[in-house]
Amino acid sequence: MPESILILGGDGYIGWPAAMHFSNLGYDVTIVDNCFRRGLAENSDIGFLYKTPGLVERAIKWKEFTGKQINVIIGDLRNATLLRKILSNKKIFLDWPRMKVAIKKPKTIIHYAEQPSATYSQLSSETSLFTLVNNLSVTNNLLFAVKDFCPETHIIKLGTMGEYGTPNIDIEEGWLEISHKGRSDKFLFPRQAGSIYHTSKIMDTDLIWFAVRTWGLKVTDLMQGPVYGLETKETKINEAFKTFFNYDEFFGTVINRFIVQTIIGHPMTIYGTGNQKRGYISLQDSINCSEISLKNPPSSGELKIYNQISETFSVNDIANLILDSALKKGYRASIKYMKNPRVEAENHYYNPHYSSLVDLGFQPQLLDQSVIQSMLDICEKYKKNIKKEVFFKGVKW
Amino acid sequence: MPESILILGGDGYIGWPAAMHFSNLGYDVTIVDNCFRRGLAENSDIGFLYKTPGLVERAIKWKEFTGKQINVIIGDLRNATLLRKILSNKKIFLDWPRMKVAIKKPKTIIHYAEQPSATYSQLSSETSLFTLVNNLSVTNNLLFAVKDFCPETHIIKLGTMGEYGTPNIDIEEGWLEISHKGRSDKFLFPRQAGSIYHTSKIMDTDLIWFAVRTWGLKVTDLMQGPVYGLETKETKINEAFKTFFNYDEFFGTVINRFIVQTIIGHPMTIYGTGNQKRGYISLQDSINCSEISLKNPPSSGELKIYNQISETFSVNDIANLILDSALKKGYRASIKYMKNPRVEAENHYYNPHYSSLVDLGFQPQLLDQSVIQSMLDICEKYKKNIKKEVFFKGVKW
Repeated sequence: MPESILILGGDGYIGWPAAMHFSNLGYDVTIVDNCFRRGLAENSDIGFLYKTPGLVERAIKWKEFTGKQINVIIGDLRNATLLRKILSNKKIFLDWPRMKVAIKKPKTIIHYAEQPSATYSQLSSETSLFTLVNNLSVTNNLLFAVKDFCPETHIIKLGTMGEYGTPNIDIEEGWLEISHKGRSDKFLFPRQAGSIYHTSKIMDTDLIWFAVRTWGLKVTDLMQGPVYGLETKETKINEAFKTFFNYDEFFGTVINRFIVQTIIGHPMTIYGTGNQKRGYISLQDSINCSEISLKNPPSSGELKIYNQISETFSVNDIANLILDSALKKGYRASIKYMKNPRVEAENHYYNPHYSSLVDLGFQPQLLDQSVIQSMLDICEKYKKNIKKEVFFKGVKW
Repeated sequence: MPESILILGGDGYIGWPAAMHFSNLGYDVTIVDNCFRRGLAENSDIGFLYKTPGLVERAIKWKEFTGKQINVIIGDLRNATLLRKILSNKKIFLDWPRMKVAIKKPKTIIHYAEQPSATYSQLSSETSLFTLVNNLSVTNNLLFAVKDFCPETHIIKLGTMGEYGTPNIDIEEGWLEISHKGRSDKFLFPRQAGSIYHTSKIMDTDLIWFAVRTWGLKVTDLMQGPVYGLETKETKINEAFKTFFNYDEFFGTVINRFIVQTIIGHPMTIYGTGNQKRGYISLQDSINCSEISLKNPPSSGELKIYNQISETFSVNDIANLILDSALKKGYRASIKYMKNPRVEAENHYYNPHYSSLVDLGFQPQLLDQSVIQSMLDICEKYKKNIKKEVFFKGVKW
């Protein structure tokens, strides 16, 4: 019997390719998503680079092309009932295939079901509250449901490198041994984030660590850097399998935005000095890391934390890399510095460690000219869809 | 013109005596409370030691006896609107005195408006979620409203010593300078709490620190130990001014519960070995510390954190102190050990520092035999109200 995986947030930028990836490997995949992020992107005029099929349509097409079935449940995990029904083997209605079944107890649950935009979280009191409540509710309900019904299930949670902020000491992988006045103890690495969204992820980590040490759960918390890229092995199977691609103020991570800006001859807009360093990872690498985590579950009462990045760059490094690649392909690429709309350190120490996943077999794909040129080629096809007014609409914090 | 103070959660065990304290000192006090804690205690059969007047009735009686006015707004701060109206000087309806007025911009806001029970937070997925969402919503809405309308206002927030847990290193006051691989930085002292309620307070601290360093707010975060006692200078003015007193599983802190158990000849029930050490503080001391904090506001962009305790004890220390005092007064006092329903370290290092408030003038009242005998005398009057079945109803974590 194939192993069962539940993917919370399986309609997202990473969630959907991850669902296809595990389905393709022969896992029995069920997605739960309320499609909030899709709706917000569609309704707030921020512009997808291209249209994608709805979630059920995605699953239908996936079955047609591959013969494999991804179960789809459209539901809101802020309400605890749905997940408690699923994990207690009660029969529930699938949105696709349309039938009432009991889902097989998952060996792994991957939790991507969070409001993922820092900018959106900073818009107002309401969007901040939405972010905190949405993200913590799903995590709370997940931890309790797993404790109550399947404490042996391995939870893989997507966190963010942003939880650490930019401390003046090396960033270890999740934990830090601290000596103080002749005594010592091991703690979660001190976290201090740059937005309310990133702070909501610190809160998730605090809650997860409480549940792991108190109830003996098994959790892997992935501190992931900004993700870039459009393609994975599975998205290339057919046009219908493309994942969301945003280049806007809310959901557009920096590499994706620079590529799109360059396509239409708009300068790559750098906030502040551009010396801000971060760890980055491609979409395919992110999914590969989830697979590695899945194959290396923690013991009961163990919280594994990995820094999930492939390499580090300053924003200037990235802009210059794209500039070079784009000029070679004949684009009129350029860079423009603008006043930083965010409160963040622009010149800072940054030395994160990220060897754990490599030790487990992760082979990072690095951001080189061929990767950038491939991204330019793909985005070029959708040039007419690009709306330059959504690159920055003015959210400050 | 008297200085204006807004007290969020002014109906509570500490909130109401704090409101009277500042009113008595001549401050212009307004209370906001949704009376959740009162309702939960009344409706869940956990037993108050005695009845107290409703919030509006408290304020009416306070005016009758002292001539001073405490404004009362019964409202739910999980919804941002109410506080935004108050702080933007819009006219709002007071529940007492019944009139529509604009509240004077407060120089200080004291934030007690949280679900305060660790045990309640551990009951179920729902009560855990309620605790996280309630506590974070009020803090989120407060921080945004102050940023948007009165960034000069000093926020005094009640946190808890429980945020730190029981680390194997000395507990500093809020912050820790960490050296690592030849570099160093200052961080929030690492926090690791023993319940979901206490974890919600860690989350508050994370959010507050984000708001302070990003928006330049002025906040004092008080890491308070378990509070004991029934009386303050103001509660003694008249029977009508008594504050809530609970001795139950949800709201009964350990000293209060031991006193009540002893009154009816029930053994003081110690969970586990009784070697758990904590910092304690009396109700009057807690309020005195708030006054000291109020008179020493931080600068813009500064987060002051004080460890607000008067002394430390193990549970055994407390039980033995009460045993001695009670035997002297002729009670048949005794101690009974029971299996610990909580997941916590029972034998641990505990060395918190707490000199900052003393340096600012705080004179702690220590828990001695006279304090205990006075508590026994007061509680004795309500002996017939004591329900022994609520001491422990079986919540475990």
